Amino acid sequence: MLTRNDCAALDAKDELAPLRAQFDLPEGVIYLDGNSLGVRPKKALERARAVLEDEWGTDLIRSWNKAGWFEMPLRLGDKLAPLVGAGPGEIAVTDTTSLNLFKVLAAALHIQADKPATADRKSIVTERANFPTDVYMAQGLTEWLGRGYRLRLVDAPEDLHAAIDSDTAVVMLTHVNYRTGYMHDMRAVTAHAHEQGALAIWDLAHSAGAVPVNLNRNGADFAVGCTYKYLNGGPGAPAFAWVAPRHQAAFRHPLSGWWSHATPFTMQPEFLPADGIRRALCGTQPILSLALVECGLDVFGQTDVAAIRKKSLALTDLFIALVEQRCARHPLSLATPREHAVRGSQVSFAHPHGYAVMQALIARGVIGDYREPEIMRFGFTPLYTRFVDVWDAVEILAEILDGQQYDVGAKRDAVT
Amino acid sequence: MLTRNDCAALDAKDELAPLRAQFDLPEGVIYLDGNSLGVRPKKALERARAVLEDEWGTDLIRSWNKAGWFEMPLRLGDKLAPLVGAGPGEIAVTDTTSLNLFKVLAAALHIQADKPATADRKSIVTERANFPTDVYMAQGLTEWLGRGYRLRLVDAPEDLHAAIDSDTAVVMLTHVNYRTGYMHDMRAVTAHAHEQGALAIWDLAHSAGAVPVNLNRNGADFAVGCTYKYLNGGPGAPAFAWVAPRHQAAFRHPLSGWWSHATPFTMQPEFLPADGIRRALCGTQPILSLALVECGLDVFGQTDVAAIRKKSLALTDLFIALVEQRCARHPLSLATPREHAVRGSQVSFAHPHGYAVMQALIARGVIGDYREPEIMRFGFTPLYTRFVDVWDAVEILAEILDGQQYDVGAKRDAVT
Repeated sequence: MLTRNDCAALDAKDELAPLRAQFDLPEGVIYLDGNSLGVRPKKALERARAVLEDEWGTDLIRSWNKAGWFEMPLRLGDKLAPLVGAGPGEIAVTDTTSLNLFKVLAAALHIQADKPATADRKSIVTERANFPTDVYMAQGLTEWLGRGYRLRLVDAPEDLHAAIDSDTAVVMLTHVNYRTGYMHDMRAVTAHAHEQGALAIWDLAHSAGAVPVNLNRNGADFAVGCTYKYLNGGPGAPAFAWVAPRHQAAFRHPLSGWWSHATPFTMQPEFLPADGIRRALCGTQPILSLALVECGLDVFGQTDVAAIRKKSLALTDLFIALVEQRCARHPLSLATPREHAVRGSQVSFAHPHGYAVMQALIARGVIGDYREPEIMRFGFTPLYTRFVDVWDAVEILAEILDGQQYDVGAKRDAVT
Repeated sequence: MLTRNDCAALDAKDELAPLRAQFDLPEGVIYLDGNSLGVRPKKALERARAVLEDEWGTDLIRSWNKAGWFEMPLRLGDKLAPLVGAGPGEIAVTDTTSLNLFKVLAAALHIQADKPATADRKSIVTERANFPTDVYMAQGLTEWLGRGYRLRLVDAPEDLHAAIDSDTAVVMLTHVNYRTGYMHDMRAVTAHAHEQGALAIWDLAHSAGAVPVNLNRNGADFAVGCTYKYLNGGPGAPAFAWVAPRHQAAFRHPLSGWWSHATPFTMQPEFLPADGIRRALCGTQPILSLALVECGLDVFGQTDVAAIRKKSLALTDLFIALVEQRCARHPLSLATPREHAVRGSQVSFAHPHGYAVMQALIARGVIGDYREPEIMRFGFTPLYTRFVDVWDAVEILAEILDGQQYDVGAKRDAVT
């Protein structure tokens, strides 16, 4: 049986441990919700001060050039690229994940419709368990586009293979599932999609900064993702879009705002798209929120994805083992795969009173979150989560469950 | 002839003068570019600190409920509403002006297509001189929708009346032109559009906080606008969308992200739109940039639009008069209407070396901006611009022109 001292020993030899000091973690909290909102990098305070006082306050409009505001979406994209196996000039940090998904899905359908061999394909394959906004955006797009496009919702990952067929225009998946932490085999699914003549779009919201992603090596076509979860970019910070180099010349979408114009300041009344990933832009970006994305990325620049993955699996293995040791007599059911190859960086347990138990955990300072139905999610962010945190969190969970210290009638907040 | 002392006397009796102290204006600068990027309200520093340290840093994920992050787009919309003649529950502060225009234009076309009497209308009437991104977004939408929709670009405001006819589905105009400062008669154009069976969309980017806008009283159908110009919300701060109460039940657009779902946290795979203006939302918003919008709105809460309009006209009248007195022998041509009823809160002069002259002004601390072709723009923001600023700016302009102190070969920046 493991002890807390064993966990402390794991921390002592953890090569990522020093990075924790670069984050401001609140006192008295074990934060296991970095998969929903990452914690604040310490440098974000100074960067915000510089944007507010020097760039906005003093230089004002001159900051578009002087502080590089206009180039920031692509500059940050280049900095993010190594974390997802992309190259320079392939990523724009901009808008929201929902909007970026709309752009790349529209572009993918356009590319397929433009080729005689795939022009008749009408099916967009995704999972019923995909993050809902991805499905909603695809519904919005296809309903407005008409032309027979339809969503094909697959009930389980193992049904994907058969669902991707000669009618599939696009396969659109979230790489790591937000509820269960199940991770798709990006290489295998993409290869199968390509064999069937379909294109593959990957949502990396729960992958970027958490698990190895190799967009180019795995042959992906398009990707989108979030910067405010594992990347610690700040609440609601702008998202990102990736377009494979081979698709950039054909990349077109309906959200053709002036930031994607070839010459935005000549103020021509005809839209002429810029070359390259700039086409993923649309309107003026929220500079302050955008600028802080860099503070999170700069921490990743001090390590590598392999080290992050190694610690992530160690943390999630430890959490599963400890919960199963300490809470065995309670009705907890592991929703996350045990197999490393298909596990992201979170652990989810279902419990009949999952909402109430999570509220009790939060009241005790162990912050995870809850997702319908019954799922308690615990996110493990290798940059700042310690092995002793895992131990302490499980101890508190066990106390709550053993003592039935939760209120089954707990009132739900607007955001759960 | 006016003197600088006369200007100082105007400042002394200006009822808005005390509000200037609520802004951080850089030393040695006369800032006449608040129509492009408003200056920083002093309270923005403290608000940013609270969001960064208390809300993100300490409360983390709990801030969605505790700090009201989730409700912020609508709460700020209600605070903005009085500035544009709207009521509570009619405005959402979210996304960008370009994206909001896409949403309301899609909705307007949908409403027209749904009524037998207007279903065959295919024309979207706008101006060739509209801000380009509005035209680009409409091009993106119509090209992608197909179905025969087309843009009808009008060359001059006086041609609008004839262009709005029985084929017009939607009239889409920017209320105050970004280059010339020409202001449309919203009531008359909207009434004519309605007589012809068309709907009217207004872009208030250069109106909100600068001129009186009466969306409801003038019978407008939809509006969008910007918070980072006259509203001083911060660089690239989220924009806004307004939907007339009578259209809210039919308001639908393709950008159906989870924030516009009736029950976003039940995580259903089918999109079910929320009631009311929440439908204008799409994805998760950049909280820090969004939060600072409130600091600018709070200054407006201490005055009213009539006082702002009165001072705005006095400032622009003074600027025109002084330039025409002091710079009469130079090839300056007034692009802004002299008539108050059709003038926004800026003054534009064309000059054959407009770009070079503007660079020389900026080097001397008089910050306006330049728009192709030949236009020098000077924005007058009544909350913080003084009458002596107008005097001093014209003196410097006269010195530059009299002494030919500008470099006609000045290299263009990326953002002009």
